[in-house]
Amino acid sequence: MKKIAIIGGGVAGLSAAVYALRANAEVTMFEQFGLGGLVTTIDKIENYPSYKSVEGWKLSSDMAAQAKALGLKTVRQKVLSLETHELGFKIVTDKGEYTFPSVVVATGTAHNKLGIEGDYVGRGVSYCATCDGAFYRDLPVMVVGGGSTAAREALYLSDICSKVYVAVPQANFTAEEMLVETLLKKQNVEALYNTSVAEILGSDTVSEVKIFNNNEVQHLAVNGIFVAIGAIPVTDFIHIDQVEKQRGYIVVDGRCETTVKGLFAAGDVTNGPLKQIVTACADGAKAGAFASAFAASTKEK
Amino acid sequence: MKKIAIIGGGVAGLSAAVYALRANAEVTMFEQFGLGGLVTTIDKIENYPSYKSVEGWKLSSDMAAQAKALGLKTVRQKVLSLETHELGFKIVTDKGEYTFPSVVVATGTAHNKLGIEGDYVGRGVSYCATCDGAFYRDLPVMVVGGGSTAAREALYLSDICSKVYVAVPQANFTAEEMLVETLLKKQNVEALYNTSVAEILGSDTVSEVKIFNNNEVQHLAVNGIFVAIGAIPVTDFIHIDQVEKQRGYIVVDGRCETTVKGLFAAGDVTNGPLKQIVTACADGAKAGAFASAFAASTKEK
Repeated sequence: MKKIAIIGGGVAGLSAAVYALRANAEVTMFEQFGLGGLVTTIDKIENYPSYKSVEGWKLSSDMAAQAKALGLKTVRQKVLSLETHELGFKIVTDKGEYTFPSVVVATGTAHNKLGIEGDYVGRGVSYCATCDGAFYRDLPVMVVGGGSTAAREALYLSDICSKVYVAVPQANFTAEEMLVETLLKKQNVEALYNTSVAEILGSDTVSEVKIFNNNEVQHLAVNGIFVAIGAIPVTDFIHIDQVEKQRGYIVVDGRCETTVKGLFAAGDVTNGPLKQIVTACADGAKAGAFASAFAASTKEK
Repeated sequence: MKKIAIIGGGVAGLSAAVYALRANAEVTMFEQFGLGGLVTTIDKIENYPSYKSVEGWKLSSDMAAQAKALGLKTVRQKVLSLETHELGFKIVTDKGEYTFPSVVVATGTAHNKLGIEGDYVGRGVSYCATCDGAFYRDLPVMVVGGGSTAAREALYLSDICSKVYVAVPQANFTAEEMLVETLLKKQNVEALYNTSVAEILGSDTVSEVKIFNNNEVQHLAVNGIFVAIGAIPVTDFIHIDQVEKQRGYIVVDGRCETTVKGLFAAGDVTNGPLKQIVTACADGAKAGAFASAFAASTKEK
């Protein structure tokens, strides 16, 4: 019997599970939270092929249901360590130890922080508009960031909040053009270019933000600050020096194998050049298929 | 304005169109037949992430609708030639000539032939069970091939035909394991290993096939022969020597760019290691996004 582990239950991991299960592998998925990963928090997805528009929770729960129908087993434990082992790889969680001949890492990324959030996280500072936007109905908010995520967050908030400032660090958005066009047509959206956040102010909750806008200090009254300044790959649990990384992202080949034989990676945690749901799913398909084939090729010890 | 061409309207091309259109590119798709490509002929798809089961025509028509809603323009002409040109690339069709700064090739593959089909194509010999299976209701048929496509074709035919022989060239199937298991449980399916087809016999239509089964000659009464022995990439129209190929497939990098700057390829026509709908779509996403970026970076002449 070929056994593989998948660490992370986002869309890359779920797609890996579908492909491995259909190749008759026994699949154990390690995911301490719910299945679906970051996609569950996306309001509206319009670029996953075949859906004109679909909500993130719907798309990811359909993927989870598909994997479960094929027999996916989930271990709801926090993975503390991934190491090499004579049987392949050892996974140490907060509750136990497991070995597998082949492993797929699909842990995605964690949000970058401004570094000045202090105690305001959850009291005005958020990393997810879809999760927390509704708390700021008819109030002024600020989105920090200039990429597609920041633009999407701002667009979402523009239908809820009275005013949405977007603090873009550079001279321009780096987001998908269509998204920026739509965003800038919104009456209550104001983009501030070459802008950085200097200080978050308030008593118990956020009430004001101090910014540098083209090197000039400004104070703006806002009740919410949505930070969307990118993310870092979650790899701190990998204790295998031979795993090559590029600016923190795991380097994989065309088959999604890392520089360590039998260890695969898929989705946002990899050095792939386009981070999208469909590319994460394709990574997962490759990692799931080739990890299963690798596990089948190893002798049971 | 950034303009790109996409040659081929299968799922890779449609996904490229979605990504390019969302990046505000003006997209012209060259496709002489209907949109959707080979996926339209697949009976049941169970491994495209988010669908437990979906019919091929449904999935591909949803993808076409998504691209059309974004403003896709289709040119229903046969592409005869793709050449380099001072403006980038020149596409010559049976009706005209066009130039583009950047082009995505998504022409997929064409079915391999046995070479002994003679006049029996369409009169007993078929390359698509979903298309032609219904003509053989309650009749004995043969599927030729041992890969996933052959297994899927045989499985589909087993619910329609009285008997389904599968002539597997090798000692075993090379298909997805779960598929083979399901197939071999069917009462009316008989797999013949180490088997090749020597001659197709009949008067007006096929009535018999002569095979070598483990080097022994056998005659079997069949009314249909479904050939599923792989496919070759469609690249004969590309008249650019610098495009590197590997066993006929176009070599692409992680961004789906070929060895010629500004020329991208996506899906089954590429040397990707796993040919699946989701990997074709991910290729398309990359090719569409990076071709648009390339077109934007070139000066309009």
